[in-house]
Amino acid sequence: MYKTIKYIGKVSTRLVSIEECPLQETENAPEAIVEIYPEYLEATKNLKIGTEVLLFTWLHKANRTTLTCKPRNDESAALTGIFSTRSPDRPNPIGIHQVKILSISKKGTIKISQLEVINGTPVIDIKPIL
Amino acid sequence: MYKTIKYIGKVSTRLVSIEECPLQETENAPEAIVEIYPEYLEATKNLKIGTEVLLFTWLHKANRTTLTCKPRNDESAALTGIFSTRSPDRPNPIGIHQVKILSISKKGTIKISQLEVINGTPVIDIKPIL
Repeated sequence: MYKTIKYIGKVSTRLVSIEECPLQETENAPEAIVEIYPEYLEATKNLKIGTEVLLFTWLHKANRTTLTCKPRNDESAALTGIFSTRSPDRPNPIGIHQVKILSISKKGTIKISQLEVINGTPVIDIKPIL
Repeated sequence: MYKTIKYIGKVSTRLVSIEECPLQETENAPEAIVEIYPEYLEATKNLKIGTEVLLFTWLHKANRTTLTCKPRNDESAALTGIFSTRSPDRPNPIGIHQVKILSISKKGTIKISQLEVINGTPVIDIKPIL
């Protein structure tokens, strides 16, 4: 379907609840595994160990009707338009994560340096860093 | 719908065909206007003139079955897995663009510094830069 997101893989991580996820990948997030589904394996050709990439996830637990939030869950903060934040709660819950590739197998199992999402989060794209 | 992209706005630009679009926004792409739809206007609160943001588009003319390509349309190049490229042709045709906000109106009309997509391209998210 034209406007339907395709899941190209999923995340395996020790993080199983949203409460234990760091707010950013740079805040002591653990290593994680990205499993690319077989039908997309060809697109991983040329990904190299040691390089940084942009990993895109679909934050499937997010609230897609949220338009404002209090940054960093700080109750004393002012309500902020979500396009000025990285809150997962937004119309399209796209997660973007700059990560380093630590290893990659021929079966499409990619180990990455740190990720702040929960186990089972769908992966939707990988791109070179900007 | 759970996996359906929501269009939060659209791009107005003088670029009307894919052939005239630069390959990257840094390659002499023209200024453009992002029109945010009224139902998402509240989420633009706190966006500031002069700041750089990540603009996400849905490259609706892309081929979503492409898994490899020749970078920069160079016929002599080797076939490269699309996750190592910024080709619009990919399973999820998400465009990511680092742009500067030049002006912003209360009606949600945002003028940005440069953009390489065609007129009418859907906008799907705005985030702070990484």
